[in-house]
Amino acid sequence: MNTTRHPAQIFVKDLQESDTRTLQGTRATLLDRLALNFLYDAIGRPPVDFKLWDGTHAANSPGGSRLRIIFRTRKALWRTCLRPDPGFGDAYTVGEADIEGDLIETLIETYRTMEQSPWQNFRRRVPGWVALPYGNSLTESKRNIAAHYDLGNDFYRLWLDPDMVYTCAYYRGADLDLAAAQQAKLEHVCRKVGLTPGMRVVEAGCGWGSLALYMARHYGVKVRAFNISREQITHAQQRAREEGLDHAVEFIEDDYRNIRGEYDAFVSVGMLEHVGPDHYRELGELIKRCLAPAGRGLIHSVGRNRTTPMNGWIHQRIFPGSYTPSLKEMMDIFEATSFSILDVENLRLHYARTLTDWLRNFDDRLPVIRDKYNEAFIRAWRLYLGGCVAAFTAGTLQLFQVVFTHSGNNRLPRSRDHLYAGTEPEFWSN
Amino acid sequence: MNTTRHPAQIFVKDLQESDTRTLQGTRATLLDRLALNFLYDAIGRPPVDFKLWDGTHAANSPGGSRLRIIFRTRKALWRTCLRPDPGFGDAYTVGEADIEGDLIETLIETYRTMEQSPWQNFRRRVPGWVALPYGNSLTESKRNIAAHYDLGNDFYRLWLDPDMVYTCAYYRGADLDLAAAQQAKLEHVCRKVGLTPGMRVVEAGCGWGSLALYMARHYGVKVRAFNISREQITHAQQRAREEGLDHAVEFIEDDYRNIRGEYDAFVSVGMLEHVGPDHYRELGELIKRCLAPAGRGLIHSVGRNRTTPMNGWIHQRIFPGSYTPSLKEMMDIFEATSFSILDVENLRLHYARTLTDWLRNFDDRLPVIRDKYNEAFIRAWRLYLGGCVAAFTAGTLQLFQVVFTHSGNNRLPRSRDHLYAGTEPEFWSN
Repeated sequence: MNTTRHPAQIFVKDLQESDTRTLQGTRATLLDRLALNFLYDAIGRPPVDFKLWDGTHAANSPGGSRLRIIFRTRKALWRTCLRPDPGFGDAYTVGEADIEGDLIETLIETYRTMEQSPWQNFRRRVPGWVALPYGNSLTESKRNIAAHYDLGNDFYRLWLDPDMVYTCAYYRGADLDLAAAQQAKLEHVCRKVGLTPGMRVVEAGCGWGSLALYMARHYGVKVRAFNISREQITHAQQRAREEGLDHAVEFIEDDYRNIRGEYDAFVSVGMLEHVGPDHYRELGELIKRCLAPAGRGLIHSVGRNRTTPMNGWIHQRIFPGSYTPSLKEMMDIFEATSFSILDVENLRLHYARTLTDWLRNFDDRLPVIRDKYNEAFIRAWRLYLGGCVAAFTAGTLQLFQVVFTHSGNNRLPRSRDHLYAGTEPEFWSN
Repeated sequence: MNTTRHPAQIFVKDLQESDTRTLQGTRATLLDRLALNFLYDAIGRPPVDFKLWDGTHAANSPGGSRLRIIFRTRKALWRTCLRPDPGFGDAYTVGEADIEGDLIETLIETYRTMEQSPWQNFRRRVPGWVALPYGNSLTESKRNIAAHYDLGNDFYRLWLDPDMVYTCAYYRGADLDLAAAQQAKLEHVCRKVGLTPGMRVVEAGCGWGSLALYMARHYGVKVRAFNISREQITHAQQRAREEGLDHAVEFIEDDYRNIRGEYDAFVSVGMLEHVGPDHYRELGELIKRCLAPAGRGLIHSVGRNRTTPMNGWIHQRIFPGSYTPSLKEMMDIFEATSFSILDVENLRLHYARTLTDWLRNFDDRLPVIRDKYNEAFIRAWRLYLGGCVAAFTAGTLQLFQVVFTHSGNNRLPRSRDHLYAGTEPEFWSN
């Protein structure tokens, strides 16, 4: 395993909380005030007050807002001005920046404004201005994935559903809880790719194995599931043995790029975010080679309404190497290889709800989490989970499920009725 | 009305049948044979024999095929070699080229091979090589649309369904005939944009008015429907009066670019093909301006799996100025204005079936059609309709229905259940 660290790497788990008491007490200078106002204007003057350590503030309305972003130190202010991401996230993590009022509401209001702000538009207009420091070569991917997914299964078990599905759930009915909605998602994916007993399925990025096991258990298919997270795949292998499904599901600790063989379905739920746009075409060619002529594929990924530079804090501290594409960018996977897009569904608000449930569980288990992780780690994770609730609610992030097949494959269901009726699909006769 | 002809313009209705008797009898030369083989190789050696006037042929198998493309004249061969489109279509139209064996089967086999042929790949690799002669300015659009849609309502009435819907139907159940499938499509569109009584709807490109009238009749909405085809809009206006729906539906003879006002839904079924990719961004901006904050839009269009130069014969002779985009290209409508894609459905095989039904009706009414149109016109229309059946069957054309809304609009149905159950949608509560 090659997980040697680049000296510049700091993942969120490496950050330490600051003692802000020693950093307070000085007055904001004219330069500080200019910086504060510049920052506030650049991100579009959200209905959230921006406040400095000495009470100086920038606000949208004279009365001020009950939602506030506080810079407790000069360093936090200037790091945020000079490099808003990861600047603000890092400052928040170590406690030098803070949010007063509801965390999620504050972030929703900020993200809504920021989406069309001078800062975001500048980032969009200057390609390459926000260079992504982490690539996704075989070696880099191994390190990127380990930094997040190998934090420890016990940690994730504290706040995920019992089946440990770490992707957007599908709250098909208003009465579904997180666990039920995750099962509904697994079922929805199976119906979309049209599984029938005996089919060969390949899964790229299988998490703790819940989808692969669901497919074998409920549809009697053979699954080969790939993942490079040692912690996750070990857990998945153990589950397969315990459930007596290890004859049907093979969990392979390897990179998706090493997938070989022919399969009747290709599924990838929540992995594309870690592929990187430079590798989309290569991914499309791989699927082209391994998908049987009448096979269908599904890619489920966080996306964007338009091409937007990745949030640097998420890219560096939370999900190293990650990137969230627009649908247009995703088409690079499919177009060069002439795949035919059959169905795209946007599950954005389902992810807002999923993340809300995760954050509530996280908060409920805080006493246990505090035993093992420092305050900086907890602050970062709450900012990540809460920030994602806000991003999916404000519409700055999307969740696309894309179903596709080879060009000219006519072995297709006539409509999407069967996805909802739960009946056998009616195929075109040709 | 500005419909002055450019001197170079020849639409299909202007072509005259040739008398091929006078053109036969000479032997194919070495050059002719080289040209034939070059052409056959360039389009990927389909399992269809290519035959010259004197019996010389190029074939894939020694035994030959029962499917044959015949060049009855040297001019037909060379025009096809030098400019396959509109060369072949024009030669076929005037009877100097022909197809022996089943028309559709021959074209399916040819298109399947052609899609990845040296010729098609060359066209794809050399952007601008296939310059599209017809643009889509306000004046050009008027002329382009008139050339096809103003051929006469009586002509279209002969082979369309009774409601005169000239776009892809939706054969939701195997038992649906053309008329029922067209009504199912209208209903599907209404459900996708979430119509409720009293809503204001705008339709860009309304054909003979069937969708606008359906929406008013079944959903109690107010519709403003735009079309620049004089023949179609006159007919639509008359229908609205006859049905007593002229208080609810306003049919406006004007270009979609002149749409003003605010609407709760935007629909456009089968118009995007006439917009032209240079105008996608402008279309997106127009929709952005006229769609209410919680409104949804639907664009239904013929598309491609990947960016592919337009078929020149269709672009010049059948649908002047037309262009069929890939999904990636369609995103130019939505991304710059940050629209959020909610749903994409590919109805490709529904269009193959629709066109099959149209062609059967067309053939059934041939005696009546012959009274009014010459043989060249009939040959061209059979090649167009049959060619489209083949293209949708072979997978070289797609049919996308794209549903979208403003970024961050959270007034959304929780799932797509209601599209299939026909019930009221269950909305997210936020």
